Amino acid sequence: MSTAISPNEQVAQVILPAELLAHWQGHRTLTRKVIEAFPEKDFFEYSIGGMRPFSKMVDELLSIAGPGIQEIVTGQQAAFTEEVYHGNSKSKVLELWDETTEKIYANWTKIGVDKFHEIIKLFGQYEGTVQSAILYFIDNEIHHRGQGYVYLRSLGIEPPMFWERNEL
Amino acid sequence: MSTAISPNEQVAQVILPAELLAHWQGHRTLTRKVIEAFPEKDFFEYSIGGMRPFSKMVDELLSIAGPGIQEIVTGQQAAFTEEVYHGNSKSKVLELWDETTEKIYANWTKIGVDKFHEIIKLFGQYEGTVQSAILYFIDNEIHHRGQGYVYLRSLGIEPPMFWERNEL
Repeated sequence: MSTAISPNEQVAQVILPAELLAHWQGHRTLTRKVIEAFPEKDFFEYSIGGMRPFSKMVDELLSIAGPGIQEIVTGQQAAFTEEVYHGNSKSKVLELWDETTEKIYANWTKIGVDKFHEIIKLFGQYEGTVQSAILYFIDNEIHHRGQGYVYLRSLGIEPPMFWERNEL
Repeated sequence: MSTAISPNEQVAQVILPAELLAHWQGHRTLTRKVIEAFPEKDFFEYSIGGMRPFSKMVDELLSIAGPGIQEIVTGQQAAFTEEVYHGNSKSKVLELWDETTEKIYANWTKIGVDKFHEIIKLFGQYEGTVQSAILYFIDNEIHHRGQGYVYLRSLGIEPPMFWERNEL
């Protein structure tokens, strides 16, 4: 007797691939709003306690999300680099952000549910399951965005609500 | 022909319940280290940009995690309160933190895999699936902990590394 599960059959799961995608993109939508909330100059220059300006943290996020999902899907390792070419223009950063959004959508459909426990060595350095890598991408973004919230508050700017994850 | 899945059978999933538990507790271990890194006085008083001191954020985390997991398991709604009785003692906060850790472990085993898509109304207010509630608990903790990192850096204190999620 076969125990194979039809892909259309609903299997009890913690989180479905489509839900994890929506969760990630929801967080990315909120981060986009935080980028928008920064005055142009402060986005590239403002800093607390010797930390990076928020733009540098966003460079890191851009360097992880797009190349990360691409490596997960293609298996082709690329060295990690945080060099992002935006010429210190916030609108260019937002353009790159939206391109990454599309890249994530386009690649996600290529990740089968059985892929999430495959072991990969991301950027030739970070070994773990695909699911742990994706959760790391999301967690790392929340972490740095939380820091961006402090920058904004310290600049007297009210950040977007934490639960505002839907596109306008 | 039966399509029922034996609980011992490995089903392709994004993340297993035990993995999500380890993920959550790993984050909580890191947050505990961040609490420890704060000087006693600064933990309760230091603030940037009119935000809450880190202790108040930790009160929120304590008010969510333990009561939240308990409500998920028992179905008994309790009103949300951020009143945590620690008498402004960091060691008492850490004690409450560890009690919550145990409460999460004890309750987790009572959450079957089919429970994660049940719709609940947490604290009588927040409607959604169990999985979305638990992800919210984790995300909210990462968010506020990221803010604690800025407080620490601004105090000249080096926070623990973001990926230090294992107990010492």
